[in-house]
Amino acid sequence: IFSKLPRVRTTIFTTMGQLAQKHSAINLSQGFPNFEPDPSLIDLVTQAMKQGYNQYAPMAGVMELRETISEKIEQLYGRHYHPESEITVTIGATQAIFTIITAFIGSGDEVIVIKPAYDCYEPAIEVNGGIPVFVQLNNTDFRIDWEVFRSKITPRTKMVIINTPHNPSGTIFTKEDMLELQRSLENTDIIVISDEVYEHITFDGQEHESASKYDGLASRTFVCGSFGKTFHITGWKMGYCAGPAELMYEFRKTHQFNVFSADHAVQKALATYLKEPQHYLGLNQFYQEKRDLFLDGLSTSRFKIKPSQGTYFQLVDFSDIAQEPDEVFAERLVTEHRIASIPITGFNTKGADNHLIRFCFAKTNETLEKATEILRNL
Amino acid sequence: IFSKLPRVRTTIFTTMGQLAQKHSAINLSQGFPNFEPDPSLIDLVTQAMKQGYNQYAPMAGVMELRETISEKIEQLYGRHYHPESEITVTIGATQAIFTIITAFIGSGDEVIVIKPAYDCYEPAIEVNGGIPVFVQLNNTDFRIDWEVFRSKITPRTKMVIINTPHNPSGTIFTKEDMLELQRSLENTDIIVISDEVYEHITFDGQEHESASKYDGLASRTFVCGSFGKTFHITGWKMGYCAGPAELMYEFRKTHQFNVFSADHAVQKALATYLKEPQHYLGLNQFYQEKRDLFLDGLSTSRFKIKPSQGTYFQLVDFSDIAQEPDEVFAERLVTEHRIASIPITGFNTKGADNHLIRFCFAKTNETLEKATEILRNL
Ligand SMILES: CSCCC(=O)C(=O)O
Ligand SMILES: CSCCC(=O)C(=O)O
Repeated sequence: IFSKLPRVRTTIFTTMGQLAQKHSAINLSQGFPNFEPDPSLIDLVTQAMKQGYNQYAPMAGVMELRETISEKIEQLYGRHYHPESEITVTIGATQAIFTIITAFIGSGDEVIVIKPAYDCYEPAIEVNGGIPVFVQLNNTDFRIDWEVFRSKITPRTKMVIINTPHNPSGTIFTKEDMLELQRSLENTDIIVISDEVYEHITFDGQEHESASKYDGLASRTFVCGSFGKTFHITGWKMGYCAGPAELMYEFRKTHQFNVFSADHAVQKALATYLKEPQHYLGLNQFYQEKRDLFLDGLSTSRFKIKPSQGTYFQLVDFSDIAQEPDEVFAERLVTEHRIASIPITGFNTKGADNHLIRFCFAKTNETLEKATEILRNL
Repeated sequence: IFSKLPRVRTTIFTTMGQLAQKHSAINLSQGFPNFEPDPSLIDLVTQAMKQGYNQYAPMAGVMELRETISEKIEQLYGRHYHPESEITVTIGATQAIFTIITAFIGSGDEVIVIKPAYDCYEPAIEVNGGIPVFVQLNNTDFRIDWEVFRSKITPRTKMVIINTPHNPSGTIFTKEDMLELQRSLENTDIIVISDEVYEHITFDGQEHESASKYDGLASRTFVCGSFGKTFHITGWKMGYCAGPAELMYEFRKTHQFNVFSADHAVQKALATYLKEPQHYLGLNQFYQEKRDLFLDGLSTSRFKIKPSQGTYFQLVDFSDIAQEPDEVFAERLVTEHRIASIPITGFNTKGADNHLIRFCFAKTNETLEKATEILRNL
């Protein structure tokens, strides 16, 4: 069979999840909480189903939810997106990103991707005939060199994908980064995907810089958000994107034939739940405690660690423990020590200098304590 | 903005739904029930959420659900699909179809589509650079001329999409049709999408002929199914596809980056609910009564009607009532008489000889009686 994605394998998340299960390991690999969402959110879904929200939701999403998303973005980032024409509810941010790429990228179009990167961007570009063009973050502080970035822009550049707070490095784009991006794209038609699914998980008082804050970006950007990350419901598969009407109009052409719409009752429930800012504004603090617990637990370990600034991930450098490649180390870690992680190669271009693995700390304190006890004895 | 889908507009289903709302019309347009699913199915979802199935489901679907789907197909159609490698749970059949097309169709590939057809096939082909090649059913009995079909096969034909029971015509492919299709594709590598979402809605004792029954088809076919249609939960967006392992392997490469997975709790609930064949085997009878009620109500009307053999749709010929195009008639019907329908042009190649509109009879008996009272006075 001819394959449009000859190099793609099963995602590292599935592979490591299966290894974790097989070895009864503590699973710090795929990013999801091992604790439960607010029971009142579950009750809202039940209510919505009982009230009869069981048939197709509107294609672009339940209007009440889109209005609430719009209000939230305006409150937080000072930008108004019109609920009717500028916000669409999606099957998680992943489907938003895949659909944006499908709607705009065709044969030979170049898309700048900052590496390491979440693994869905590249195949989505390739399956549409596009060409991913990589800008590599350095392996120590994971900052972007904007000179290098600009050197990758060509007349064929159609799109740029950024992700802040950044998975897997846990870095945050600064205001200066956002201004550099804005300047770099001036006088071009380049579209931006800003993957901001961890917008509510930032640490040490640092602020998330949404692309929607910047006029010169907002006019060309799809901002992608995730309810899964914010409300501990990754399995409900619910996210959204916001962007200028003329881009959104094109997006919806593809969206309506990809999935048509998202779960109706869950959208009704989220419309109510999202109205209370306390349901997401405390998330920074909640995850800061987990990050701190995890880092404290590793403080006497032999891992070299730059504290995560955002996301629920912590990258660690294992080069004082072993010299083998990250994939070998991660596999040994799960089979011998029963801790599942993600080797950074899952996010990187092959051959990058890697002695890094990623842990997810969206776990109960008990799990984090058990894990660090093992890890600090390596 | 450059558009990959310049001719695509908002789907007719959204447009007619909005018109229905605006004019407080009886909505027989978009296909969805206006009655509720089994409360015990809702309870199962609530239970699953309370039991903690709120994080990512496995990428290809909850294993217990895939096993149950496999058993059901084997019981009904005598074909075994391996739950591990040959069944994937999707965001409705729509996402399955879009993803199959994306996984296999590239620039210049031809896909045979039988018209009239559900409106998602064509844009999915075009957004991937493929070329839809149409085989037109005639407007009276909607049978397929297999000589014409075979004449459309070229060395570039990569895929064929069939749909039985057929939306919008309500016809069913016969055993002879399936054998003709099988023979026509012998000695080719052509992949088939068999959209069988109405498999449990057939009338007058007629049997659904699943592509999975036929060796020469099953080995090249993705059979697509829908829980929305079968359990009155179109808004839950849950379906699946089944197909040979080597095709499914390619499918999942794209699926995992399009949506990654489907709602976990809903899958758990369906795994339990689907185990009881009485939950779907009575559906024929249930909808036969609705079809009969609808047809009885129209028996003295001026519509010319060939009774639907399957699906929850009935096409009617309005040429004895008006001579105008179907789109004009459908718009008048909703604005002046407050009955929303779908003009067949929504499914057809422009310019086909159309004086047909489609009604959805997945409605309460009360709704059907109200509607037919208006319709028989036209
Ligand atoms: C859809 S699986 C990936 C979850 C995630 O965001 C991650 O682990 O990086
Ligand atoms: C996703 S909207 C279409 C529903 C349907 O199957 C139809 O009305 O034909």
